[in-house]
Amino acid sequence: MYLKNCWYVAAWDYELIDGKMLARTILNENVLLYRGASGEVIALNNRCPHRGALLSEGRREGDGVRCMYHGIKYDQGGRCVQIPGQDMIPPKLRTRKYPIVESARLIWIWMGDPAHADRTLIPEYAPLHDPKWRGTPAYLHYDANYLLIVDNLSDFSHLAFVHTNTLGGSEEYAYVTKPVVVERQPRGFRVERWHMNSEAPPFHKKVIRDKDARVDRRNHVIMLIPGIFYMETMFTPAGQGAEKGNTQNAREYRNCQYMTPETDRTTHFFWSYLNNFEGSDPTISQSLLDSLIEGFMEDKAIIERQQKTLDADPAFESQMLAILADAPLAHFRRALSKLIEAEQGAPAIVAAATKVPSLA
Amino acid sequence: MYLKNCWYVAAWDYELIDGKMLARTILNENVLLYRGASGEVIALNNRCPHRGALLSEGRREGDGVRCMYHGIKYDQGGRCVQIPGQDMIPPKLRTRKYPIVESARLIWIWMGDPAHADRTLIPEYAPLHDPKWRGTPAYLHYDANYLLIVDNLSDFSHLAFVHTNTLGGSEEYAYVTKPVVVERQPRGFRVERWHMNSEAPPFHKKVIRDKDARVDRRNHVIMLIPGIFYMETMFTPAGQGAEKGNTQNAREYRNCQYMTPETDRTTHFFWSYLNNFEGSDPTISQSLLDSLIEGFMEDKAIIERQQKTLDADPAFESQMLAILADAPLAHFRRALSKLIEAEQGAPAIVAAATKVPSLA
Amino acid sequence: MYLKNCWYVAAWDYELIDGKMLARTILNENVLLYRGASGEVIALNNRCPHRGALLSEGRREGDGVRCMYHGIKYDQGGRCVQIPGQDMIPPKLRTRKYPIVESARLIWIWMGDPAHADRTLIPEYAPLHDPKWRGTPAYLHYDANYLLIVDNLSDFSHLAFVHTNTLGGSEEYAYVTKPVVVERQPRGFRVERWHMNSEAPPFHKKVIRDKDARVDRRNHVIMLIPGIFYMETMFTPAGQGAEKGNTQNAREYRNCQYMTPETDRTTHFFWSYLNNFEGSDPTISQSLLDSLIEGFMEDKAIIERQQKTLDADPAFESQMLAILADAPLAHFRRALSKLIEAEQGAPAIVAAATKVPSLA
Repeated sequence: MYLKNCWYVAAWDYELIDGKMLARTILNENVLLYRGASGEVIALNNRCPHRGALLSEGRREGDGVRCMYHGIKYDQGGRCVQIPGQDMIPPKLRTRKYPIVESARLIWIWMGDPAHADRTLIPEYAPLHDPKWRGTPAYLHYDANYLLIVDNLSDFSHLAFVHTNTLGGSEEYAYVTKPVVVERQPRGFRVERWHMNSEAPPFHKKVIRDKDARVDRRNHVIMLIPGIFYMETMFTPAGQGAEKGNTQNAREYRNCQYMTPETDRTTHFFWSYLNNFEGSDPTISQSLLDSLIEGFMEDKAIIERQQKTLDADPAFESQMLAILADAPLAHFRRALSKLIEAEQGAPAIVAAATKVPSLA
Repeated sequence: MYLKNCWYVAAWDYELIDGKMLARTILNENVLLYRGASGEVIALNNRCPHRGALLSEGRREGDGVRCMYHGIKYDQGGRCVQIPGQDMIPPKLRTRKYPIVESARLIWIWMGDPAHADRTLIPEYAPLHDPKWRGTPAYLHYDANYLLIVDNLSDFSHLAFVHTNTLGGSEEYAYVTKPVVVERQPRGFRVERWHMNSEAPPFHKKVIRDKDARVDRRNHVIMLIPGIFYMETMFTPAGQGAEKGNTQNAREYRNCQYMTPETDRTTHFFWSYLNNFEGSDPTISQSLLDSLIEGFMEDKAIIERQQKTLDADPAFESQMLAILADAPLAHFRRALSKLIEAEQGAPAIVAAATKVPSLA
Repeated sequence: MYLKNCWYVAAWDYELIDGKMLARTILNENVLLYRGASGEVIALNNRCPHRGALLSEGRREGDGVRCMYHGIKYDQGGRCVQIPGQDMIPPKLRTRKYPIVESARLIWIWMGDPAHADRTLIPEYAPLHDPKWRGTPAYLHYDANYLLIVDNLSDFSHLAFVHTNTLGGSEEYAYVTKPVVVERQPRGFRVERWHMNSEAPPFHKKVIRDKDARVDRRNHVIMLIPGIFYMETMFTPAGQGAEKGNTQNAREYRNCQYMTPETDRTTHFFWSYLNNFEGSDPTISQSLLDSLIEGFMEDKAIIERQQKTLDADPAFESQMLAILADAPLAHFRRALSKLIEAEQGAPAIVAAATKVPSLA
């Protein structure tokens, strides 16, 4: 059960070049995405309503698509406009069209009631619109429910153990740092965490000159329903008072991640890791892309194993025992459940909410 | 749920040479097929009734078979005739024997009540008995319910889009031709369709001399319950009046196809494509065999994808929207449902019947 | 449904060398097995109770283990002893510890109520403790329910057909020999069978000098709940009166086999085949190991196929037809059912008991 009346990321723009007919399952629905002759991105239910052949195996004609089983043609609104050998077109013969908005290289889709598809609801992320932030958009596929990825991102102590040699840097991160802010919001949460006077983590070391200099590190995280993650990361020379506002010689990153459910057990994961200091050196973006993929692969191994564990014993989901650091994830699941309930007019069961511990 | 009291094709004769113990699931039952020492083809339930070892892994002895787990031997009637180490043979210890008829290279099996296995009910296909029709029998396995193949064969407009460059020849076939006959029969349907003054389709071009000559083409199709398809195809020089009976210089084909359910989601597909003009040139049969396999692979890709689509959302089957050309398939499913209902003494649900549009 | 309050073999000791963190599913529970710094073998539920990451992917620390997702540490009793970044340890945060006993190279586990884990209930097998019996412990994995392996071992007529060229020697074994003892016991059965004046079977021939000498062969089998098999095998020169006690020049084997359910459809199979005559020649043990693996592979093919047959039609299990030789297996399943019923306080359905034929 998903929140339907909200925008999800369906694709990056680069996935729709060269006439690509992209079949992508979103919230358990098989969706065809393509760029029409007019340049508009179009999303239709991918099943031909006649006999279920895939329109993604069909032929784009202008902004429409022809099913290549019996030749039935649909326009960009999903309406049947031609049946070879039959003059009368039944008005019912149409495939569902989904509202689409393209913005800052992202293709957003609305899986709920089109009447509510208000484009101002799209959570725009400023760095994606700002040329001073540079990075390479990327996609990963997870064999796991999207909320397990949200969980992962809600507690950065895992950096210490999962990403010791990539994004984290040391186990110290879990022991000597704590969130200084954990803020529950109506549609998500915000967490801020500082790590003072530490060695730079490997991914950062690779793209700076003075690899031995101690740094102060700030991670500032926002998570939004249905599964949108923003992070500001700042490194400054240690001890200059970054926590009081002295950001001289800071190196900064901006990171957005979009978790879109494919099925109950699989997820589309879109992300970009941006920096503001590469100047004319494209190897910085490339190095960061590589480092992030390396780190995400470490997450993926654990998260996909969690999914298998839950598949083997679904009852375990409601038996998990929370620690204090689970407050954000527990809040997120509760908030999401309430929104789904409101939308469905009935109690929702979102992958079980953990009991929320009170914050220390 | 299947129609049981009727003949299905179980195998071609060539599949049982060299002492082959053929394990073949038919209508969800695991059947052992083999040719006994007497030459008779024998079909037994393949599960040893003792502990379920496969008799196909056993040893043929005369017309019988010995299970090679504990050595229990069954005769050609499925009766236990020996238990090593035990003198008394319990009369209940037997495996089911299925009635078999071998005719015109086909091995027919009766999966229902043996008391009704009347061999005169076998739908003999005259060209298979007639040496003037030449062709190579062949087998394909489909990962799809057999009725999806019946559907495919019930509307030849798909030739235009699926088989444009193989069996069809052009998309024109769908636009300028219509069935001139669509006849509902108690156990199937008959459809006749002409394509006048057209280029010869690729498969036919390969086996004729004058590849540029325009042709008139007649396809005459009969489909019979439970899933038997016959087609007469005739090409004549365009415009000579073939439709009025002038069949001078005609090139003709006869095609039989037999769809036997393996499981609810898989099908055995037996077929032969026959011609009457190859004379002493065996490359004609070989070329036609290759062309038909090429064409069937195009069907198979679409049909197996339909099955996956239905597996992902079984409710879709009853939501499909019919066009006029679906009249034959809708009639077929209704007629089959009625026969199964009569046999079972209860309402049957055959893969949902589409609502029948009235014919134009 | 399994008998829980009994000892199962979890591993051979050699599987836990070099700091191995062994994840092994037992009775459908994911168990972590490892040897702690103290030398003690420890078994914990492998799911971190926090978010389900696998402790087997974690890090052993002393006798404890640290989950490498968020760094939570558990001691050898499964109690949480550290949460990085959190001072208070909730007492509920613990993973289940399973009683373990190590004896004669076997690691035994108790999956039921630890209060009843009485180590004197472990069925010790004397030859495993006695240095005069030599052999190589080994492990196989079966894709089949463990009771199908028990079945296999309960009727040695299968030696004749399954193992003709390996462990059996000839089909004669099934025709001219019968059990001389079939004894039903409260927790199993005992069967004794003699084969007089026969050729030596291939596995035995390989390890003796006079390969042509006729032998008398005794197999004496004990099967115990939940799935423990012992066999004494003796070969003497034919006709010297071994059956009356003259065991001069006998060659003897001792064999233990332990079937531990992994899941309802898979089994851990531990075994050792021991001899008392190899002296200083280790090639004897090696040859016997190879021969037994060869023989078990023959069983495995049949037994795993039985499992597939039952998966395809679970109703078949209660339709199987017994022969006289099935008395032991039928008794075993009934006795096991009763014990499970007593433990659960409710009727148990153990993979269907065959109706017991009366013994001849």
